[in-house]
Amino acid sequence: MTTESFRKDVAKKLPWPEPIKAGRWQDAKIDFPNDLTSSDRKYIHKIAESFRLHTLSSGTGDARYISVYKNPPAGQEAKRPPRETGAGVLNLSPAAAQRLQHVASTVPNVPGRVLLAKARTIWLQDDETVQIIDQRHLPHEFVVEDIKSVQEMCVAIKDMHLRGAGLIGCAAAYGMYLSARAACAAGDAQLPGSDAARLRDTRPTAVNLRVGVERDAEFCQRIGEAGADILQEISVRKGGTVNVLTHCNAGWLAFADWGSALSPVYVAFNRGLALHVWVDETRPRNQGASLTAWELAKHGVPHTVIADNAGGHLMRTSQVDVVITGADRVTSTGDACNKIGTYLKALAARDNSLPFYVALPSSTIDWQLKDGADIPIEQRGDEEVKYAEGLCDDGKRRKVLLTPKESSAGNWAFDVTPARLVTGLLTERGLCDASEEGLKKLFA
Amino acid sequence: MTTESFRKDVAKKLPWPEPIKAGRWQDAKIDFPNDLTSSDRKYIHKIAESFRLHTLSSGTGDARYISVYKNPPAGQEAKRPPRETGAGVLNLSPAAAQRLQHVASTVPNVPGRVLLAKARTIWLQDDETVQIIDQRHLPHEFVVEDIKSVQEMCVAIKDMHLRGAGLIGCAAAYGMYLSARAACAAGDAQLPGSDAARLRDTRPTAVNLRVGVERDAEFCQRIGEAGADILQEISVRKGGTVNVLTHCNAGWLAFADWGSALSPVYVAFNRGLALHVWVDETRPRNQGASLTAWELAKHGVPHTVIADNAGGHLMRTSQVDVVITGADRVTSTGDACNKIGTYLKALAARDNSLPFYVALPSSTIDWQLKDGADIPIEQRGDEEVKYAEGLCDDGKRRKVLLTPKESSAGNWAFDVTPARLVTGLLTERGLCDASEEGLKKLFA
Repeated sequence: MTTESFRKDVAKKLPWPEPIKAGRWQDAKIDFPNDLTSSDRKYIHKIAESFRLHTLSSGTGDARYISVYKNPPAGQEAKRPPRETGAGVLNLSPAAAQRLQHVASTVPNVPGRVLLAKARTIWLQDDETVQIIDQRHLPHEFVVEDIKSVQEMCVAIKDMHLRGAGLIGCAAAYGMYLSARAACAAGDAQLPGSDAARLRDTRPTAVNLRVGVERDAEFCQRIGEAGADILQEISVRKGGTVNVLTHCNAGWLAFADWGSALSPVYVAFNRGLALHVWVDETRPRNQGASLTAWELAKHGVPHTVIADNAGGHLMRTSQVDVVITGADRVTSTGDACNKIGTYLKALAARDNSLPFYVALPSSTIDWQLKDGADIPIEQRGDEEVKYAEGLCDDGKRRKVLLTPKESSAGNWAFDVTPARLVTGLLTERGLCDASEEGLKKLFA
Repeated sequence: MTTESFRKDVAKKLPWPEPIKAGRWQDAKIDFPNDLTSSDRKYIHKIAESFRLHTLSSGTGDARYISVYKNPPAGQEAKRPPRETGAGVLNLSPAAAQRLQHVASTVPNVPGRVLLAKARTIWLQDDETVQIIDQRHLPHEFVVEDIKSVQEMCVAIKDMHLRGAGLIGCAAAYGMYLSARAACAAGDAQLPGSDAARLRDTRPTAVNLRVGVERDAEFCQRIGEAGADILQEISVRKGGTVNVLTHCNAGWLAFADWGSALSPVYVAFNRGLALHVWVDETRPRNQGASLTAWELAKHGVPHTVIADNAGGHLMRTSQVDVVITGADRVTSTGDACNKIGTYLKALAARDNSLPFYVALPSSTIDWQLKDGADIPIEQRGDEEVKYAEGLCDDGKRRKVLLTPKESSAGNWAFDVTPARLVTGLLTERGLCDASEEGLKKLFA
């Protein structure tokens, strides 16, 4: 059994953490069932250790089971001191992960690093309910939304309760599941066709309906491993902390799991590499300032939020070693369409001879398109530029007007970075040149 | 008498507008004294027309005088229909201009374009009081601040009640005036020396104490004329609206008068050129979204605010004809230090073969420096990045937190655009190459 498939097995077997009261995160404990083998238990112990969590096995013979604790169980305090470095990703079941997420988000003042089990961003809660993390409330609040119809899924995509090319693909797939259920109930065979078109129209630049949730998560992890190798090489060559600059959010919040651009960061960090991430705030919607910073903070990765304007200066003054971004669509020739502002960072990387990688599961590749100029660029409402949204001193979330009321604003959501500026594409099959030949070699 | 010196003469002769009650802008009227010649009156009429204001001459012989009205005087409605295009800059005295500014800012709902007389940003109100426009309140409120000591001037510069290389120079000069008065009163000959050092330390990147207020205004106007010629050439070549992209605020709010980067825009617009300005919002302090947009809106120049990330896409898709920015310091070899993010726009202009001009009065040139890398880059507090400030629905000005509370942020205020990326420097002596030779030719 491979590590990956074993992890999935563990995730399935994982029971609900029972019962963690809000504010009693210190007492958090998960008991695993007693039908695990001893090597299963060993694996769980390893994962827990990488999270600086504690484990204790109890019972004998067939009744033996393992428990994971936030804090050392009574009498075990001295046996397993928390490690100073390293953290891992515990591939919990969505329900369990969500439970832990909730506990973590309601107990913000846990001493030390918050050890957050990674939740998926979208999951099937029961036959008729898809649940998503409503990302509009991050980083200040953790809100889970119920989606019960295609209509609701369209609103969630269009109004950016969720975003990111991979996650939109997953959301569309779940939307089609809801559509299929509704079609059966209504005896309407036309419904799925029109629903698919409706889903496709929600976000013209990014949608890819072919993405499968499990495949997406697996692909993202492989991207992370390929990317982490590159970060490790840089670390060896440089002999110090590797400074990664990223734009927008292409972490696990942008996918079902793991993420694209941040996946190498998580994998490298979990391997123990000294890392620091420059987080572009990514105006106008601030996905960097809110989502990427939140993800990295929860995972314990050192990071600094910067204005989108700062990256050029940081590159010119040797404070960046590598740029990694995601992509919403990549042509068969390697032109990459990503969040507005990516092109500017690619230019700065080129001007300073720094590597610029685009990370993407291959479902992002549009094999029909040869020229990035042919990718339709979505224009969003001008209020995103005219206003900024965040948390006020009084604890309320508000919008503030930045411009004169009468001034108009333009809001292009994406730009295209031509292949000539891209050092390489990081895919689930590894690294390739951003060119027709490079992509063909990997995916022929 | 040249047009310029006559304008100044008009400004001196201009009386206070009497008395315009808040909310009665419709009745606004300025009577000019009767000692003007008929050609003086003709000139005033021309300026008024370019503002779409109305004039009426009354009285006969030596008693004849001209009045300027916001709306047609009774019985004159049909005689002078408002023109559809063109606007001008009425070089009012500071006091009169301030009065009109105040009226305009308290009457936001004037139908049609707000015809705002241009105020200076700093002026001597009486022997012991310097007044400034406190720019932190724009674009939502127009606030004038009294400055009576060097200490207060230092706070105003440091906390950015005023900003912009030219204006900081003027403010420092006015600060030295206040220092000289204080030194005389106290009989302390050491005071001006230590005050000068204190003023110099307020903003390491930009301060230039040698700037004289009148010279600054005159230089900026000449920059405008040189730049407007370039915009006019582009207009002729292109045969349509000229799209200018600018970063940060280098308009008249950044100087005593006129501005550097925006001066060509104002001059060209007043000449009747079809213009549109892309206004980078300029995070983290949003000087573009608040100040540049406000200036352009008041002047009636068509403009669109964009996220700083958008410029690259607009250049790649042929929606920009020319980029003009200001500078806080320029080396003797033409490297230009300006608001953080300028370098990224220069890269995009180069990548798309678009002209990129830096506009600056020569007081901005640091003749001692050869390499832009030697310019100290100011780092400001991280709260500017972590928060955005603006107007809430309830009419209150507030800050909203954009990032997780625990994330750190980095805030470099400037970057350096190397001379190789600069098409030309627009100075009060005209255009020159961004090189040692180019600058020497103009200023040897």
